[in-house]
Amino acid sequence: MELEKNLTCQASEVKVVIMVILALLARKTQSANRNKGLASLLSPVNFLDHTQHKGLAVAVFGVLLCKLFGLALSEDPLPFISHTEHKQNWVILGVFYYPALYYPLLACGALHNKVGYVLGSLLSWTHFVVLVWQKIDCPKTPQIYKYFSLFSSFPQIACLAFLSFQYPLMLFKGLQGTEKDNATEDLNSSYYKDYVKEILKKKKTNKISSETRGLLQRILDAVKSYIYTPEDAFRFPLKLAISCVVSFITLYQVALVLIVAVVPTLQTARMGVDTDIANVLAGFKIELSADKNEVVRIVVYYMWCVEVCYISSMTLSALVNLAMLMRSMVLHRSNLKGLYRGDIYTVYNCQRRIRPSRPALVCWMGYTSFTAAHVVAAVLIQTLVFFLSLLVAVFLIIIPILHGQNLFLFKALWNMWPFWLMIVLVVLIQHICARFCFIRKTAGTRDLDNRGNLFLLTYVLFPVSILVGVLLAAWRLLITALFNIVHMGRMDISLLNRNVEAFDPAYRCYAHYLKIEVSQSHPVMKAFCGLLLQTGGQDSAAQRPRDAEEGIQLVQKEKKVHKVSSAKRARGRWQLLYTLVNNPALVGTRKHFQRQSADSFVNGSLKKSIKEGSKKETPSKEAEGAASN
Amino acid sequence: MELEKNLTCQASEVKVVIMVILALLARKTQSANRNKGLASLLSPVNFLDHTQHKGLAVAVFGVLLCKLFGLALSEDPLPFISHTEHKQNWVILGVFYYPALYYPLLACGALHNKVGYVLGSLLSWTHFVVLVWQKIDCPKTPQIYKYFSLFSSFPQIACLAFLSFQYPLMLFKGLQGTEKDNATEDLNSSYYKDYVKEILKKKKTNKISSETRGLLQRILDAVKSYIYTPEDAFRFPLKLAISCVVSFITLYQVALVLIVAVVPTLQTARMGVDTDIANVLAGFKIELSADKNEVVRIVVYYMWCVEVCYISSMTLSALVNLAMLMRSMVLHRSNLKGLYRGDIYTVYNCQRRIRPSRPALVCWMGYTSFTAAHVVAAVLIQTLVFFLSLLVAVFLIIIPILHGQNLFLFKALWNMWPFWLMIVLVVLIQHICARFCFIRKTAGTRDLDNRGNLFLLTYVLFPVSILVGVLLAAWRLLITALFNIVHMGRMDISLLNRNVEAFDPAYRCYAHYLKIEVSQSHPVMKAFCGLLLQTGGQDSAAQRPRDAEEGIQLVQKEKKVHKVSSAKRARGRWQLLYTLVNNPALVGTRKHFQRQSADSFVNGSLKKSIKEGSKKETPSKEAEGAASN
Repeated sequence: MELEKNLTCQASEVKVVIMVILALLARKTQSANRNKGLASLLSPVNFLDHTQHKGLAVAVFGVLLCKLFGLALSEDPLPFISHTEHKQNWVILGVFYYPALYYPLLACGALHNKVGYVLGSLLSWTHFVVLVWQKIDCPKTPQIYKYFSLFSSFPQIACLAFLSFQYPLMLFKGLQGTEKDNATEDLNSSYYKDYVKEILKKKKTNKISSETRGLLQRILDAVKSYIYTPEDAFRFPLKLAISCVVSFITLYQVALVLIVAVVPTLQTARMGVDTDIANVLAGFKIELSADKNEVVRIVVYYMWCVEVCYISSMTLSALVNLAMLMRSMVLHRSNLKGLYRGDIYTVYNCQRRIRPSRPALVCWMGYTSFTAAHVVAAVLIQTLVFFLSLLVAVFLIIIPILHGQNLFLFKALWNMWPFWLMIVLVVLIQHICARFCFIRKTAGTRDLDNRGNLFLLTYVLFPVSILVGVLLAAWRLLITALFNIVHMGRMDISLLNRNVEAFDPAYRCYAHYLKIEVSQSHPVMKAFCGLLLQTGGQDSAAQRPRDAEEGIQLVQKEKKVHKVSSAKRARGRWQLLYTLVNNPALVGTRKHFQRQSADSFVNGSLKKSIKEGSKKETPSKEAEGAASN
Repeated sequence: MELEKNLTCQASEVKVVIMVILALLARKTQSANRNKGLASLLSPVNFLDHTQHKGLAVAVFGVLLCKLFGLALSEDPLPFISHTEHKQNWVILGVFYYPALYYPLLACGALHNKVGYVLGSLLSWTHFVVLVWQKIDCPKTPQIYKYFSLFSSFPQIACLAFLSFQYPLMLFKGLQGTEKDNATEDLNSSYYKDYVKEILKKKKTNKISSETRGLLQRILDAVKSYIYTPEDAFRFPLKLAISCVVSFITLYQVALVLIVAVVPTLQTARMGVDTDIANVLAGFKIELSADKNEVVRIVVYYMWCVEVCYISSMTLSALVNLAMLMRSMVLHRSNLKGLYRGDIYTVYNCQRRIRPSRPALVCWMGYTSFTAAHVVAAVLIQTLVFFLSLLVAVFLIIIPILHGQNLFLFKALWNMWPFWLMIVLVVLIQHICARFCFIRKTAGTRDLDNRGNLFLLTYVLFPVSILVGVLLAAWRLLITALFNIVHMGRMDISLLNRNVEAFDPAYRCYAHYLKIEVSQSHPVMKAFCGLLLQTGGQDSAAQRPRDAEEGIQLVQKEKKVHKVSSAKRARGRWQLLYTLVNNPALVGTRKHFQRQSADSFVNGSLKKSIKEGSKKETPSKEAEGAASN
């Protein structure tokens, strides 16, 4: 431990030195390159970028998250503090210290020059070697379970290994000159153009209507909707990618804590059972058997059952959350695509304005963290509930069946056979009568028949139906609770009724997050800006802009100088007219698009130039709309 | 008890005699009047009728329901059985016996003649007098609580009193000749015409858009949406009216059982506490005080607290369910009105065909009973959950504050003040930055500003946000659980997410119920049928038809004889053309209306005549659509 602290203090000093070097370097770069330098050093992650290399940011967030879990569970929250009197305050300090500690790992990649990559390689190697060496040197810690610290650091080691590999790779590419300049990559990237091309393609309409599909087909479709398959023409926003990885690491860490905090204790207790237990149980007036060894055998067997239940419930919970994570990714993609093509009503179930607002921005900032917190809560609750259900199932159903004793649950159910028979018969009679007596099918239409008898049956079966209703209410309770517990960790769906969806804080946060993401990184918009910039670049040898924001500013300046020729404008208008005449339904969409794009994507002063742009874009919007229908 | 059995046996015999008299009477009537008589005796309730007098059916269902609660809770399920060996089988017999027992009360009103009313009056008087006499004679029973049986029979007495008053009233009206003939009333009723007139009226559009309304106004609107105010131009279908009354009586009965089963026992226990309790507690190593009288005082006080918690939670649950019942009625009305004007998507959140089907019919039959069962389940669960929450609140918060001791919860929270301060500060900083630094408002548009700093802040606050997220997850859990528990008793909303709504069995049943109700008793359709019949009646002196079904058959026959004149048809077509030219958006609606009405309202062989009818109706449909927008 002492070694670790010394190392960490030295590492902190090394990092300060590195940051100073980077800052000096940045100042030097700044003089050469307008909008880079210090600014990019202070915000090395562009969360609104689809095309940048996501690995660096994801790995650093992973390392940070693992450290935070260590912080919450360890005795000494910070490495350079030995006394743990006010642990809480040190934890609070820690949650601000660790982001700063790992900041240089991000910043080294932000400058996009060779010195940065060299420093980044050195830094990630140091981190990696120190961590691995430390874990090899003393794999056992007194914390919770002897190997807990070791297991807990696996994701961290993986992330650092990835960084140690990635920085040299970037350096190598930089030396070879094959590395694309990240700074200009975003808008010039072929991704946005590919996205537009993809939506302009005609889709094969091989969809069969839901009524003609068989049951098997529908089950297969439901299973498929839980499997995420990457698509070439769609990339996740960086923040969503980070959220997914963070969720996965959180799942691993929480499952690890749940396993190591309980299972070793249970095993120790099981090993320690001896004949004294018979006396203890006798003190509680419980006599399992006359033979003391038999009592020990039974107690050990029951404890083993409890252990199996616990591990099963933990595994089940982890698997459920993995499936939910996959399903979330599928849904994120379809939601984003839906919003890109303006399908706001389907995604939100109401009309909303897609533009940045204060609450939306706060939700956007916290989204990744909230995902992690919800996964923690979901795993804990699921494990508890599944564990209790499994215990009940094992001790009331499985063990009685296996041993053929204590079958009181089955006996009670068996004694109620006239009741069950009545329920089944009544439901059957209702269905058969409804099918053959009360519905008349003539010439493809359906109508009620024998109304008098229908009303009579309804009156006579009123009391029995109350009993059926009680079973239905129990089923409703079960299915609602199970659904909500299983989906607890997902922020992308609301757990409430469709009319009050927004009262679910997690879903509200997700809806706000989507707003910012869509309003700020619409691929079609970015493709359009990229095209504009290319035109601008061909005309004048202006310096390349850094991102969409500056791209737009650049456009604004250049627009004033180079007016669009009247022939071009005429062609644009003709295209617009042609589109609208052929698709009168688009008029509404177009106005909507104009207002929205004017509101959220660009400044008010840019309205005019964008209006012209949107006119040019109308054919592609149309194709997109057609593809979506 | 012996007396009651004798009386009930005699009453059964009396009823058999009455049913025989009614049957004879029905045969006599049958010869005179084509479609009445035995048929109407066998189905005295037309559940699909909006206009008939609902009182009779509602009161009989109320009486039946009270008897069923007695059946489930009493020792002797049936009055003429004294040995209670196979109680379950007798209960099963009972659930079929009681509907038969009270059937004559309904049947007497079904024939619509004076002898029926006289018999009905006699029968309801007998029932009423016997029940009241029995309760006055021996108000105390050994069952659960001495006055339970008395309290439990109050709704039954009220329903019987209503019947005893209603039958003579109907007889009196029949003698005076002012009673409308119920049989022909439905289609000739002015209600359907009034409904059509109401939707043809132009609505004042004093709606203010939701964005301009203040918070207070929105809260007032939310409160108003929970208060049901009757509308002249809308009547509930009979089945919904019965369901509401049944829910109310169920609520009363369950609340009564919950009170009398627990509170008297608690009170007895509280009265019986003496100094021995100190010794008992000492056996469990609990020492509340050195003075034994002080111990008794403390224990009695705590038991009183538990009692208060229990009664409060019960009352709260009952009030919540009453509010839910009112809200349900508001929602039923808006759903029915929505479906009447074809607004299927808003009600179901997906497109469905409104036509009878096997599952829909089964759900329709059981709907009233299912409502009752769900209210039972809801009250039980709510009482349990509210009781536990109140116990926790009282013993961990209120009592410690009042007595100034055991404040460990507050101490724990107070010791965490740096944590809470940090959370509050971080959230404040995020909101302030989002408001003033990161969002730029120019010329009415909003855009992100200072992206670099935004990304930096997002990275730095990542760990803290996880802590905020944990609080958010706890809030989500709380609000979801509370919402679902509070709305457990309502079948008209789904407790699941909007995409899987149909997996909620109660909501599925409600959706099916609505289908049958709307497809079979559409007021506009009925008004149209009524108009057709009036025309038919003017032309030929045909006998008046009994209800819509027969009305349509009549139309079918008459259509074959009296062809619509070509001038009339030409005028109809001109009106149709005029309407469609002026409202091109109606074309889709019209096709839809045709298909639907052809499918669900009428036989296939009637398609042609109805098509012509729908052409005539198009202007009114248009007005209805306009009123709905």
